[in-house]
Amino acid sequence: MSWAEWFAGQRAAREAAGLQRVLRPRAAGDEAIDLANNDYLGLSGHPDVRRAAGEAALVWGAGAGASRLVTGTTTLHAELERELAGFTGRAAALVFSTGYHANLSVVTALADRDTVIVSDAHVHASLIDAARLSRAVIRVVPHNDVTAVRDALAAAGGRRALVLTESIFSVLGDAAPLAELAETCAAHAALLVVDEAHGLGVAGDGGRGLLHGLGLHDHPHVVMTATLSKSLGAMGGAVLGSAALIDHLVNRARPFIFDTGLAPAPAAGALAALRVLRGQPGLPSRIHERGAALADRLGVPRSAGAVLSVPMPSPRIALAAQARALAAGVRVGCFRPPSVPDGVSRLRITTHAGLDEMSWERAVGIVAAVAAEHRQLV
Amino acid sequence: MSWAEWFAGQRAAREAAGLQRVLRPRAAGDEAIDLANNDYLGLSGHPDVRRAAGEAALVWGAGAGASRLVTGTTTLHAELERELAGFTGRAAALVFSTGYHANLSVVTALADRDTVIVSDAHVHASLIDAARLSRAVIRVVPHNDVTAVRDALAAAGGRRALVLTESIFSVLGDAAPLAELAETCAAHAALLVVDEAHGLGVAGDGGRGLLHGLGLHDHPHVVMTATLSKSLGAMGGAVLGSAALIDHLVNRARPFIFDTGLAPAPAAGALAALRVLRGQPGLPSRIHERGAALADRLGVPRSAGAVLSVPMPSPRIALAAQARALAAGVRVGCFRPPSVPDGVSRLRITTHAGLDEMSWERAVGIVAAVAAEHRQLV
Repeated sequence: MSWAEWFAGQRAAREAAGLQRVLRPRAAGDEAIDLANNDYLGLSGHPDVRRAAGEAALVWGAGAGASRLVTGTTTLHAELERELAGFTGRAAALVFSTGYHANLSVVTALADRDTVIVSDAHVHASLIDAARLSRAVIRVVPHNDVTAVRDALAAAGGRRALVLTESIFSVLGDAAPLAELAETCAAHAALLVVDEAHGLGVAGDGGRGLLHGLGLHDHPHVVMTATLSKSLGAMGGAVLGSAALIDHLVNRARPFIFDTGLAPAPAAGALAALRVLRGQPGLPSRIHERGAALADRLGVPRSAGAVLSVPMPSPRIALAAQARALAAGVRVGCFRPPSVPDGVSRLRITTHAGLDEMSWERAVGIVAAVAAEHRQLV
Repeated sequence: MSWAEWFAGQRAAREAAGLQRVLRPRAAGDEAIDLANNDYLGLSGHPDVRRAAGEAALVWGAGAGASRLVTGTTTLHAELERELAGFTGRAAALVFSTGYHANLSVVTALADRDTVIVSDAHVHASLIDAARLSRAVIRVVPHNDVTAVRDALAAAGGRRALVLTESIFSVLGDAAPLAELAETCAAHAALLVVDEAHGLGVAGDGGRGLLHGLGLHDHPHVVMTATLSKSLGAMGGAVLGSAALIDHLVNRARPFIFDTGLAPAPAAGALAALRVLRGQPGLPSRIHERGAALADRLGVPRSAGAVLSVPMPSPRIALAAQARALAAGVRVGCFRPPSVPDGVSRLRITTHAGLDEMSWERAVGIVAAVAAEHRQLV
């Protein structure tokens, strides 16, 4: 079979299954209310954040120019790392171009064939890919099952071990039992790697993350990863932990070493967003208030974070509901396989603290009506 | 062994081998001439590029807010993709957050356990990681050895096959035999994936890349990847090829699907840089004129691109030479294991077309003196 034939066959199969995706560019003046993006606090467009990002591009240029290890580390990166570590209560931080790079880096730099990785069944694609790439022995355990983690660690026979989880899961919006997992890791000399992509800026005191909220921010067996592209409204990822860990990553993490540094504009944008968040410690609580009310109205479980997940009867009906919401002026996400852990297509709705009350109420009304109408279809 | 002990042991081993790395932030007002970065054309700091990046942050905000497949595709991304495809003579393009994401995406979305990957021994870490992650059968062939590629494809037994190479290699600066490789791939129904990270903006007519320069831009068996963070002075990566390939990546490439879109500022910066380059088609030729003169002066082989590689007696001497050059006002790169394909430490010097004549001549004098002095040490 030629490659052209293979592409055509793959596409035909996607179309038959209702899984074909296309990109739909949005314009700068787009008026729809966006409950699909992860800019939960509205900081991407905050005046201070826009201005800081814009000024950084003027001062530093459009790019970092080289790997962070060559000349791609600016004082801006160093400042961002210092403030991220300070905010989350960690000793040190390292910033990456994406959250994907952060997760690939921490796992592949720590794990090898002599390591056991115990991974929650619902972790993000970047952690799954990281585990595969590391060549470690991988044990996937049922979602949020501490006993299964304990058993897998006990069976690791003293090998170095990593446990991978998220603080708040990206699709279902539920939280991991982090305190129990940290205790289990400590008992087995394992490291717990927690992706706070959906926790930073959302959970914990003032948005310091769920680990901080549980008093686990200085736990010696806990490593945190995060993204700067969700609640901080910019782009990039971070790993937060001990100075020894960060030193190891700088020296050994291939997706850090062999990558151009994060561009100045998103680095400055993330830093400005962090400062806005520090100055408005009550902002994240609005996510939870609004989210709880919306969940109740939709009849779905309340979320530990900003993500509400509404199961739909099929991929096609999920798409139809998404299109209907957009026609009414609200963008919602649509999760279809392979982006869901269980094959169930969903509307994915994110709670936004930054929206004014009237826009939020209007969006809630539209989403509730569309969801109710489409969930009955078969 | 505890993780803390393991970190300490790893660091001690690095220090003993002279391979310990630290980050050295540079300040905004830094006066050193930078021959270490990959901003070969000086476009990162070009007034049009700075302004476009800065304005995009003001108009669009600091981040894309979501995956490209959700609401993270803006008309800016679409415009950048259209112009990148047009410039390089390709049917379609897809932009990623980094070149790493682009390479991971194209390889993992195309290859699986039923695929054979034939990889040049000198390809970039991102292609190596991509091949590993794909789970394909991997055959690493000697550097630039077309016969070995042909043999490996003949032995693939009709399975789908990818051949991975770079157009201009990142460490040694030499070029791949792309015409022969393309012919070989066509004969075996294989796809040739060519990373033009160091070719775009440098090689070919007006910087359209080495593939374009060789008339291979519309070859049906050739896929191009590129970065927006080197000659285009911004951040991000791209895959360029047929519409069917791009459609496949949008639907199947996990590092595309599960990543927040490239931030508006670097996207706009890359687009502006592309337009500057199109308006100054003679700019890349200055890289080659200056590079040839510098190579002759250093007594090293001329480069096919902007990268000159100067072997040094040891990692420590390479570091000492780098420090000496910086003290004299010039930043140069220093490549030590594991960033070199053959274990030889090197100074890595990039030719810069954007520097004024006086700065360039001053930098050349310093680099030549430092290299001559340190290459004699043992």
